[in-house]
Amino acid sequence: MTLQEIGKNAKAAEPSLRILNTSLKDRVLQIAAENLVKRREELLKANEEDLKRARANGMAPGMIDRLALSEERIEGMAEGLKQIASLQDPIGEVLSMKQRPNGLLIGKKRVPLGVVGIIYESRPNVTADAFGLCFKTGNAVILKGGSDAISSNIAIAKILRASLKEAGVTEDAIQLIEDTSRETAAAFMKLNEYVDVLIPRGGAGLIKAVVNNSTIPVIETGTGNCHIYVDETADLTMAVNIIFNAKTQRISVCNACESLVVHEKILDELLPLLKKKLQEKQVELRGDEAVCKISSDVIPATEEDWGKEYLDYILSIRTVSSLDEAIEHINRYNTGHSEAIITENYDHAQRFLNEIDAAAVYVNASTRFTDGFEFGFGAEIGISTQKLHARGPMGLEALTSTKYIIYGNGQVRP
Amino acid sequence: MTLQEIGKNAKAAEPSLRILNTSLKDRVLQIAAENLVKRREELLKANEEDLKRARANGMAPGMIDRLALSEERIEGMAEGLKQIASLQDPIGEVLSMKQRPNGLLIGKKRVPLGVVGIIYESRPNVTADAFGLCFKTGNAVILKGGSDAISSNIAIAKILRASLKEAGVTEDAIQLIEDTSRETAAAFMKLNEYVDVLIPRGGAGLIKAVVNNSTIPVIETGTGNCHIYVDETADLTMAVNIIFNAKTQRISVCNACESLVVHEKILDELLPLLKKKLQEKQVELRGDEAVCKISSDVIPATEEDWGKEYLDYILSIRTVSSLDEAIEHINRYNTGHSEAIITENYDHAQRFLNEIDAAAVYVNASTRFTDGFEFGFGAEIGISTQKLHARGPMGLEALTSTKYIIYGNGQVRP
Repeated sequence: MTLQEIGKNAKAAEPSLRILNTSLKDRVLQIAAENLVKRREELLKANEEDLKRARANGMAPGMIDRLALSEERIEGMAEGLKQIASLQDPIGEVLSMKQRPNGLLIGKKRVPLGVVGIIYESRPNVTADAFGLCFKTGNAVILKGGSDAISSNIAIAKILRASLKEAGVTEDAIQLIEDTSRETAAAFMKLNEYVDVLIPRGGAGLIKAVVNNSTIPVIETGTGNCHIYVDETADLTMAVNIIFNAKTQRISVCNACESLVVHEKILDELLPLLKKKLQEKQVELRGDEAVCKISSDVIPATEEDWGKEYLDYILSIRTVSSLDEAIEHINRYNTGHSEAIITENYDHAQRFLNEIDAAAVYVNASTRFTDGFEFGFGAEIGISTQKLHARGPMGLEALTSTKYIIYGNGQVRP
Repeated sequence: MTLQEIGKNAKAAEPSLRILNTSLKDRVLQIAAENLVKRREELLKANEEDLKRARANGMAPGMIDRLALSEERIEGMAEGLKQIASLQDPIGEVLSMKQRPNGLLIGKKRVPLGVVGIIYESRPNVTADAFGLCFKTGNAVILKGGSDAISSNIAIAKILRASLKEAGVTEDAIQLIEDTSRETAAAFMKLNEYVDVLIPRGGAGLIKAVVNNSTIPVIETGTGNCHIYVDETADLTMAVNIIFNAKTQRISVCNACESLVVHEKILDELLPLLKKKLQEKQVELRGDEAVCKISSDVIPATEEDWGKEYLDYILSIRTVSSLDEAIEHINRYNTGHSEAIITENYDHAQRFLNEIDAAAVYVNASTRFTDGFEFGFGAEIGISTQKLHARGPMGLEALTSTKYIIYGNGQVRP
């Protein structure tokens, strides 16, 4: 099938998906969850093909783990779909409705985006997950996964399409682009005629390629160079606790803390406490001059360190002499993700919340909470680090648009 | 000044603009309004340079009219700024705040987008207007106007910058790119490092160029191929009234009606009434076979007519045998702008509102109401025909983003 045909199919599916009622959508998700588990042998077999190819190509063990399915992981995919079924359907909500002086009643109603394109890398579970989120919000989805997982993705998409058919819903609610070439990916990014929005899910390289090449509007999910600022008035026990959590609870995620900013007045006192706690996980520290002066075993940080997302047991530490300097440093080096202040000072807390430019700004809490589930959305498509359309953790609402509905009785414009 | 320098200046201005209080912002807008009127001689002189060049280049009279300033138009610009000053400031509004089970208080707060880029054509008043809207919403704006109006734009920007300075606010809240070459425009569209969003204001060609070439997120404001569907149960007097208004009240605008869809059962009765009324403005009709059969003086419509935004005294007419066919036709040919049904049938009204995919869908009213002022927003940046971020008339809120503010007391993620 050509990209043009896939686009046309999605557009043709859109009108019926737009008006599907919630109970039918939820039924499809339930059926799909059951079918994934029921047909797990088929999935595991397809996945084995991918794994064989990966091993033959010498893929790193970490990558192979991301690619691998298991009975447990298949059950996890199914659970994910059931959970999406249990969420409230955002479609149809009227966000506001006002009567104008001329009698027109103007309402703003939540509607699907239309056709959503998703470009992702090697995790095959994204196939089911992305379908679930897009389908619940009345969108047709076109998926373009990585070549590594193509056999698994084809098998998953086949089961999802069969489940749609079983419930009497158009199978083209999900389409997978089976051609994993770069040329096709590039052409997909310019399919404006059929695709309303493109969401890349994966590493920084993939996201950058999509942002630079797509002519379709993109929702950028991004990297996190997250900071914690320890104010001069901080409760140091709380600070150490939060830093330890934000740095080490899970190092490979975008909301992990990568850099510490410390007020010079408390550096002497904080550093030994912090080093002791972080040694539990052998965290490497890279500090500025003031830090290295106190503690000779800290590695001197370079300019590059301030902008780096380590995704590792490494933490940079910068000393500042004021809140202003802290805010300036963070606004300069952050990636617009999650930033925290530890303070007991009311005014500093408020200023930090107001003046830091990021998707999520915390007082006295770990940056690790920036997450759709932790925020109570029940689902997450990704964490947007751009400012348009959606910012921060994106739940189902990020996959919706609005339209104005206007009730008149003959009004004309004077 | 290079584009890089302009970008850096805007980014440097951003933090102070983000936290400007409303009364100071409104004062700047008042001062700017006064200064524009006070320094009108300077503006008229600069405008005369543009006009001279335009006449020498043989610019069409309609275009020259768009380019020309007058005392009255300068007062209009000033009034526009005063009106923006009188609007409620959307920045700082907390849209929701919820306590999570772990005690975290998570709020969603309205914040500026940051740096807004605007690319526009020959109307110099856009310079003041775009500044006013962006400044009120705490954004730094970088403007790139057309070469035709460059002298006028430089003069207006100079007065706006002087007004900012007079109030003690950073002048870089507005910067004008004085180099009007295509190369600079192309480079501006890739200034992702400094610009958060790009809004093209102008004709279809300009918008398409920006959508295709920008790597910065774009808010697409677009063309309107707006339909009115006259249902079999329509009140025909109301229908004729609304069609006359939507077609002829102002022909050059995107919310004017371009195409009529008529149920076959009432075609016989409607057509003579409609022709009589539309003859008042010499509207040319282009109809399908059924229409031409009844009325031999109607020009046969071609396939091209159904997709055409005439912006002229021309109206196409298509006959359908059902509401389904009407919805299908409109969803196929519309541009996602404004669509209306004239009906007395409750169910048809509801189905039309639900199933038509457009920014604004009307029952028994003229499509001409799709407008920020008519919708009660008090201002308008444009009418978005895309589905991301903003759809339909865009008021001040379309120039804002949100951020999450989180109040904790030591929470860490388990």
